[in-house]
Amino acid sequence: MSSFDQIAPQLEHQAIELPSWAFGNSGTRFRVFPQAGVPRNPEEKIADAAKVNEVTGLAPSVALHIPWDKVDDYDKLGRFAADHGVRLGTINSNTFQDDDYMLGSLTHHDQRVRDKAVAHLYECIEIMNTTGSRDLKIWLADGTNYPGQADIRQRQEWLAEGLKKAYDKLAPQQRLILEYKFFEPAFYHTDVPDWGTSYAHCAALGDQAKVCLDTGHHAPGTNIEFIVAQLLRLGKLGSFDFNSRFYADDDLIVGAADPFQLFRILYEVIRGGGYGPDSEVAFMLDQCHNIEAKIPGQIRSVLNVSEMTARALLVDHDALAAAQNAGDVLAANQILMDAFYTDVRSDLADWRVSRGLPADPMAAYAESGYAEQIAAERIGGSQAGWGA
Amino acid sequence: MSSFDQIAPQLEHQAIELPSWAFGNSGTRFRVFPQAGVPRNPEEKIADAAKVNEVTGLAPSVALHIPWDKVDDYDKLGRFAADHGVRLGTINSNTFQDDDYMLGSLTHHDQRVRDKAVAHLYECIEIMNTTGSRDLKIWLADGTNYPGQADIRQRQEWLAEGLKKAYDKLAPQQRLILEYKFFEPAFYHTDVPDWGTSYAHCAALGDQAKVCLDTGHHAPGTNIEFIVAQLLRLGKLGSFDFNSRFYADDDLIVGAADPFQLFRILYEVIRGGGYGPDSEVAFMLDQCHNIEAKIPGQIRSVLNVSEMTARALLVDHDALAAAQNAGDVLAANQILMDAFYTDVRSDLADWRVSRGLPADPMAAYAESGYAEQIAAERIGGSQAGWGA
Amino acid sequence: MSSFDQIAPQLEHQAIELPSWAFGNSGTRFRVFPQAGVPRNPEEKIADAAKVNEVTGLAPSVALHIPWDKVDDYDKLGRFAADHGVRLGTINSNTFQDDDYMLGSLTHHDQRVRDKAVAHLYECIEIMNTTGSRDLKIWLADGTNYPGQADIRQRQEWLAEGLKKAYDKLAPQQRLILEYKFFEPAFYHTDVPDWGTSYAHCAALGDQAKVCLDTGHHAPGTNIEFIVAQLLRLGKLGSFDFNSRFYADDDLIVGAADPFQLFRILYEVIRGGGYGPDSEVAFMLDQCHNIEAKIPGQIRSVLNVSEMTARALLVDHDALAAAQNAGDVLAANQILMDAFYTDVRSDLADWRVSRGLPADPMAAYAESGYAEQIAAERIGGSQAGWGA
Amino acid sequence: MSSFDQIAPQLEHQAIELPSWAFGNSGTRFRVFPQAGVPRNPEEKIADAAKVNEVTGLAPSVALHIPWDKVDDYDKLGRFAADHGVRLGTINSNTFQDDDYMLGSLTHHDQRVRDKAVAHLYECIEIMNTTGSRDLKIWLADGTNYPGQADIRQRQEWLAEGLKKAYDKLAPQQRLILEYKFFEPAFYHTDVPDWGTSYAHCAALGDQAKVCLDTGHHAPGTNIEFIVAQLLRLGKLGSFDFNSRFYADDDLIVGAADPFQLFRILYEVIRGGGYGPDSEVAFMLDQCHNIEAKIPGQIRSVLNVSEMTARALLVDHDALAAAQNAGDVLAANQILMDAFYTDVRSDLADWRVSRGLPADPMAAYAESGYAEQIAAERIGGSQAGWGA
Repeated sequence: MSSFDQIAPQLEHQAIELPSWAFGNSGTRFRVFPQAGVPRNPEEKIADAAKVNEVTGLAPSVALHIPWDKVDDYDKLGRFAADHGVRLGTINSNTFQDDDYMLGSLTHHDQRVRDKAVAHLYECIEIMNTTGSRDLKIWLADGTNYPGQADIRQRQEWLAEGLKKAYDKLAPQQRLILEYKFFEPAFYHTDVPDWGTSYAHCAALGDQAKVCLDTGHHAPGTNIEFIVAQLLRLGKLGSFDFNSRFYADDDLIVGAADPFQLFRILYEVIRGGGYGPDSEVAFMLDQCHNIEAKIPGQIRSVLNVSEMTARALLVDHDALAAAQNAGDVLAANQILMDAFYTDVRSDLADWRVSRGLPADPMAAYAESGYAEQIAAERIGGSQAGWGA
Repeated sequence: MSSFDQIAPQLEHQAIELPSWAFGNSGTRFRVFPQAGVPRNPEEKIADAAKVNEVTGLAPSVALHIPWDKVDDYDKLGRFAADHGVRLGTINSNTFQDDDYMLGSLTHHDQRVRDKAVAHLYECIEIMNTTGSRDLKIWLADGTNYPGQADIRQRQEWLAEGLKKAYDKLAPQQRLILEYKFFEPAFYHTDVPDWGTSYAHCAALGDQAKVCLDTGHHAPGTNIEFIVAQLLRLGKLGSFDFNSRFYADDDLIVGAADPFQLFRILYEVIRGGGYGPDSEVAFMLDQCHNIEAKIPGQIRSVLNVSEMTARALLVDHDALAAAQNAGDVLAANQILMDAFYTDVRSDLADWRVSRGLPADPMAAYAESGYAEQIAAERIGGSQAGWGA
Repeated sequence: MSSFDQIAPQLEHQAIELPSWAFGNSGTRFRVFPQAGVPRNPEEKIADAAKVNEVTGLAPSVALHIPWDKVDDYDKLGRFAADHGVRLGTINSNTFQDDDYMLGSLTHHDQRVRDKAVAHLYECIEIMNTTGSRDLKIWLADGTNYPGQADIRQRQEWLAEGLKKAYDKLAPQQRLILEYKFFEPAFYHTDVPDWGTSYAHCAALGDQAKVCLDTGHHAPGTNIEFIVAQLLRLGKLGSFDFNSRFYADDDLIVGAADPFQLFRILYEVIRGGGYGPDSEVAFMLDQCHNIEAKIPGQIRSVLNVSEMTARALLVDHDALAAAQNAGDVLAANQILMDAFYTDVRSDLADWRVSRGLPADPMAAYAESGYAEQIAAERIGGSQAGWGA
Repeated sequence: MSSFDQIAPQLEHQAIELPSWAFGNSGTRFRVFPQAGVPRNPEEKIADAAKVNEVTGLAPSVALHIPWDKVDDYDKLGRFAADHGVRLGTINSNTFQDDDYMLGSLTHHDQRVRDKAVAHLYECIEIMNTTGSRDLKIWLADGTNYPGQADIRQRQEWLAEGLKKAYDKLAPQQRLILEYKFFEPAFYHTDVPDWGTSYAHCAALGDQAKVCLDTGHHAPGTNIEFIVAQLLRLGKLGSFDFNSRFYADDDLIVGAADPFQLFRILYEVIRGGGYGPDSEVAFMLDQCHNIEAKIPGQIRSVLNVSEMTARALLVDHDALAAAQNAGDVLAANQILMDAFYTDVRSDLADWRVSRGLPADPMAAYAESGYAEQIAAERIGGSQAGWGA
């Protein structure tokens, strides 16, 4: 197995984007439990994200959600971010919280609604032009609840048309990232339910269109690392939305539900060239946890990604290839498991210290007084929520 | 196969309780889309439920949710219901929408919160004493999102204690109905996740404790009709919450996702003595549909239950038993399918007419002008929502 | 809704291929229960398949499995089939029952084994040249049981290479049909696990490569009719393997587990142009039932497809489109359900009689004495099994 | 967190029974791949199991399967085992591989078959009386493939009757262990599909009846550790069948698919008093791996259980309870994760050496020459298979 020292240089390439909306209140359909100190505007969200980066060094950028993070002056917002040591990242479109979108957006049967959704994508691209963001991420809530409710075949054509219109507005350095999701909020069919659908549309659009893989958006039992390997092979893995889940789209802390799965995913990312300075794969968290404190929850998640990346980097590729080519099932498996079971936590703590970061970012945050400070300061105004 | 005339007398026993909360706005965590004419108070919910009963003759009672349906004078509410041709039914407790309950209610680690939850159950029983309701239905959102978050073993003891306290307050004719749910809103563990847990607690409590089977609350692939048969055998099937789902707890119209499953469930209900004048099994809808009109959605659901009950009653039991006892797999299956594939819709329409009901309740409702009337009248005030 | 008379002419296009291996013994890993009268060679399998066609008129061709159905003289076998009123159809390759294939075939780490698997595909194509079969169907058992066991990325390259070699041998009128399967017999990863993977390979190969959709080969909850619609849209739906399942790949009688799903699938087939004289989509059964009689099980399956096709043809497209375009969720759903709930069985019986077929094919078979005849005649020799 | 030295004494209580059938050939319905050196009789199976114990010190007993392991003289077999350093353990009944059992055994519609199955259980109990085995384990393949095929309600009564007859034959120190399984080989319904059913029957039978939890026998997403906690609470957890799976009942090496789940299960075992000298919970492997070498696969499995037990013992219970009682979700989770992420492998190697065992049992086995020896010696005769 590789030693930690051997892989340490590669750890420097790690950058995990944080979603601005992760710092607002969120919940289930049963209840959104409010938390103290929750941000009230995009600046406060960015400040919170910057705090995560301050103690981890792993989260240098913040994704925005439009219209949740609409501001009058994006240059100013960008400078605010820079002043806090982070930059603005992916622009996420939202075509699911307006009454018009109840029955769809890009796939709605009414041309007026489809045009409105396309106009929203145009607006997002204009914001990207200002913020310098590379990626427009499109997740659609489009789908139906009942068989017969809509023409699922025709909706694919409308989807292709709408995506094409947005794609054609991209500058050469920009990308359209199409996310897929197995189900929810639609319960019978979803218009982009699987990687195959996202891939087919991206392939038709062109080289600037890529697939977003959200780790929580698959059918039970799906082998996600296979999809990683396949999309990398096809040149179409654009980005990750990391989170974890036991059941549906639970949006739990990355690696909380199945750490070994996270390890396997990261192993295939590395194996397939998706990690490192030459890769254009974007790594982002997308988890809306409900009951735990927001900022520490994000810190824990980026640390989990970092720890698992280290373990995945430790895999002894030569020994693994030799066992695989010998057909030695048990030996090959054991080589992989050896890396997974290696406890990298204290090596990583030392590595962080060597880079001027806290050995224990969770403790550093707790001791920083930031939680108490924002709880005291952010009184009045309306708390940002998931969807506000 | 039996003829429709032979089974018609049995159809008269059908009574499906409607939940008051089905008429308010509801949605997913992504968005609650408001509808025109949605009720603003318990009386308006009852009026809507009564409308369903008026056109179907199948829904003579309305379940209340406390505190959503709290009123000062339950006698008056009961008279209001009676004036509209329905009566008040099951009282549903709610220990999931108060901030105190974020980490549990009857299973919370803090004695104060557990006591508060028990006090709420006492309050519900007092309301039952006034309304004359037989059943206290307890569905708990209790659970955890992360391994280690709580002591799942200890929580079972607290659960048993809390239930015991409520059970001991029941009058002899009252029942405690304990619902189970596979997951959601908790994502790692749920304190009453399966029928076995609900059964074990009800068995410990005594004869007045029964299990509620919600058709949407099972792991993928679960054979629900088996559970029906088992609970009937054990004397512990208290009630049904009917709805349907493709994935998780989608809360779609009964029979919409898998009509054959609904048929099989109703067949086992009848087979096991759960249907008819001698049965104490309660039938209720519990679906919170999001995008279709509220009242017609309920009408469609009770009609679906009615149609499937008719089909299930049509099964030729003697022929089926003969084929089963001969080990003739294909013949036995075909006898069951013959009943399922029989189109009972026009016979049921005639039957409804013979009882002074509309042949087509969906059309009768549409033509009644009620939708337009409530949309016009119910302006101002705040719409009842799921959770309000 | 359309009337039966209106759709009857379209029913004449229905042709469902039967798999030769469905008539042999099959079972689970726990036990294969032998049946009386099971065929001992390809001719007897064809004779049984022909019997299904004789009483249904729906099954004019028989798929072969190589090497299970290897014979010295395929011309002679073709004439035998023709004499029995059927023809030889799809050639199914088998690269999973030789010791060499324990760790893979086209994706095996050993070049020798990969070459052997390609050679087998060549052999199948040569047989196709003799039998006049259009389709080479490739289902691979390739996959791994343990993380790390093999290089799943590299295996995709080997897969692409192997498929390309076979594809290049096809005559212009021949097709390569690549089947996908979620899991089993491999338990960790499968090399062609989903439609997306099959599609990506077929797209790379060219126009003569198409996807086979086996209705039992998906993750729990997958919306199969969506995949039908998508593949038809992409011009890549080559064929169906029909069966049904409650859990994994149960291989039950078509429509037995979820008749409404079968209806929705057939509706999307028709909607997307996959049914009728202009379509090249092939319909095949692929079910290996274990405990029911073989021939009646196949008869029941083709009848189920026939009945559901009739229901799907009955959908009133104009009314449906109108409701969909009005955003009337309940009305649109009801229009679809009206067709599903229509009892077409007696109309179909009359239609069969009008074509010189038995009104009740199940009864006709039972009365034919064929079961007793083959049980008496097929003594000695070794029964064909699934895998022999 | 506890130190390894603190928990080391508790590790000595660990004993994992091995199934004799794990050493024979096994496979899927697609193919059973034979291996060199596979045992040809019960003695050779015991010798192989003893080899696992020799290098691990963790597997002191061997479970037998009747009739697969029937011998004329069980005393002699017991002495053979003792000579090899192990003893005979649980007796597993088999009522699924005789033609009579195609449609059921204890639940068969034919009294004759039910009586035959009961007689088999009697035979097993007689063997137990000779071998001194404590446990009769009953796993039933009983179930149906099609709705209507059998009367699932009545079958519960027959099941109860049959179990009662066997239970009444038990000596006071003997136990009846009833295993449940979600599905397979039956595909529509299983007569003991879930822990609730097994529990209800065991509760009715009496104190000597307990539930067997096979980790591979649950619906997707089931929280198994909850069931562990619940059954321990109810005093009904009799034994474990350990294995792992990604999809259905894959029968992979314990901990191979989801090591964190194994950790959580073992944590609840310890938490609930199921581990240690005062516990009567039996731990057994039950995995029938297909493609990897038999003996090393078993060694790897017992080592995985051992490693995870050590990690679960390391959990700092006081700190965990404090965080739980403070409602600190993230801290509580982290305390659990800290134990999971601790690398115990070298401490365990030292501990083994201190007990006179090899530091690396996998290497010790490989170097022992046993594999080569049995491959050379066990020529001729028929290899034991799963089911033979």
